[in-house]
Amino acid sequence: MAHINLQNDLPGIRGPMAFRPETARPLNELAEILLHSNNSLPPGERELIGAYVSYLNDCFFCQQVHGAIAAHYMQCGPSFIDDIKKDFQATSISLKLKALLTIAASVQKGGKFVTKEQIDSAKRLGATDMEIHDTVLIAASFCMFNRYVDGLATWAPTDREIYVQRAKIRAEEGYINLDLYK
Amino acid sequence: MAHINLQNDLPGIRGPMAFRPETARPLNELAEILLHSNNSLPPGERELIGAYVSYLNDCFFCQQVHGAIAAHYMQCGPSFIDDIKKDFQATSISLKLKALLTIAASVQKGGKFVTKEQIDSAKRLGATDMEIHDTVLIAASFCMFNRYVDGLATWAPTDREIYVQRAKIRAEEGYINLDLYK
Repeated sequence: MAHINLQNDLPGIRGPMAFRPETARPLNELAEILLHSNNSLPPGERELIGAYVSYLNDCFFCQQVHGAIAAHYMQCGPSFIDDIKKDFQATSISLKLKALLTIAASVQKGGKFVTKEQIDSAKRLGATDMEIHDTVLIAASFCMFNRYVDGLATWAPTDREIYVQRAKIRAEEGYINLDLYK
Repeated sequence: MAHINLQNDLPGIRGPMAFRPETARPLNELAEILLHSNNSLPPGERELIGAYVSYLNDCFFCQQVHGAIAAHYMQCGPSFIDDIKKDFQATSISLKLKALLTIAASVQKGGKFVTKEQIDSAKRLGATDMEIHDTVLIAASFCMFNRYVDGLATWAPTDREIYVQRAKIRAEEGYINLDLYK
C-alpha cells in the first residue's frame, strides 16, 4: 500500500501523477522531450539509459516500463535488456552506447562521479555535446522518477507481459497528452 | 570548465538550461509548482527541503541558491541555514518540518529508504498527504537538479553574497518566464 492515500489504484508513477496532475504535466513533458521527441540518439537508446539507471536504483516499475519500451524500439527480447543491465560491456551494443551508459552509471551515483575521461571517451566514439547533455539529464531525471515511485511506496504489476503490451502504445503515443487513467 | 561546450558562461544550472531551452521549460515549470506556487507548506520550508537535499548531494550551487532563498523567506541569516544542514534536529524549526526533512533525507539515499514510521510520524505532526507527496517530489527533483549541475561540471560563484542578492529576485519572480541570461 502506498505511503499516502493516492485516491486511485493506478500502478507505479501513474498513481502519484493522477493524485497531483499539476506536477505530472511538466514531468511528462520532460519525459517526452528526453525520450520520445526527435533526437540524434535513437529512442531505444534513450529508453535504455532510463531503464539502466532504474535498474541501478532498484526501481522495479521504471525498469520494466522503460526496459520494455527499449526492447520494442530495439526489436529485441527482454533477455537482451536483462543482459545489458547486468553487464552491458559484455553485450553487442555499440561502443558509443557503452560510453553513454558509463556516464549514466556515474550520474546515478552522483554528478561528481562523471569524469573527464568518461566524457572524452564518449566524444571520441562520436557522441555530440547535445547527446552527452541529454544522457546526463536522462540519467538525472530517472534518479528523480525512481525516487518518486519508490519514495511513495507505489505498487507495480509483477507480470512482465503487461509492460510489453503497454510499451507499444507508449512508443507510438509518447508521454504528453497522456490519459493517466488509461 | 564544463564537460561540454555550453556556448555560454552562465553559472550552475543556468548554463545547461540556456544550452537546451526545450528541457529548461518543464524543469522550471516543475520548480515553480513545487517551490513557488501557493501551497500549504510555506515556500521557505520547500526551498529548505531543496537546499538540504542539495547539501546531502554535495551540490554547492543548488545549496547556495536555495539556501539563500529559504533564508530570504524565513527572514534568517545564512548561519541558521548552515545549522539546519549540519544538524536540523538540534535547531528550533518545527517538529513537523523536522519530520519532512527526515523523509527528504531518506529520499536522497533512495526511494526505498523512506519508512512507514517516518510517514506516520510526519502525519502525526500534522503533515497532509499532499505535503508528504510534495516533500518526496521536491527531494527527488533535487536529486535530478543536483546531478544535472554537477554531472556536467558547471561552475558556481564562490561569493555567497551573490546568491543572497539573487534570492530576493527569485522569491518575487519565481521560476517561470525566467530570462536565463539575466
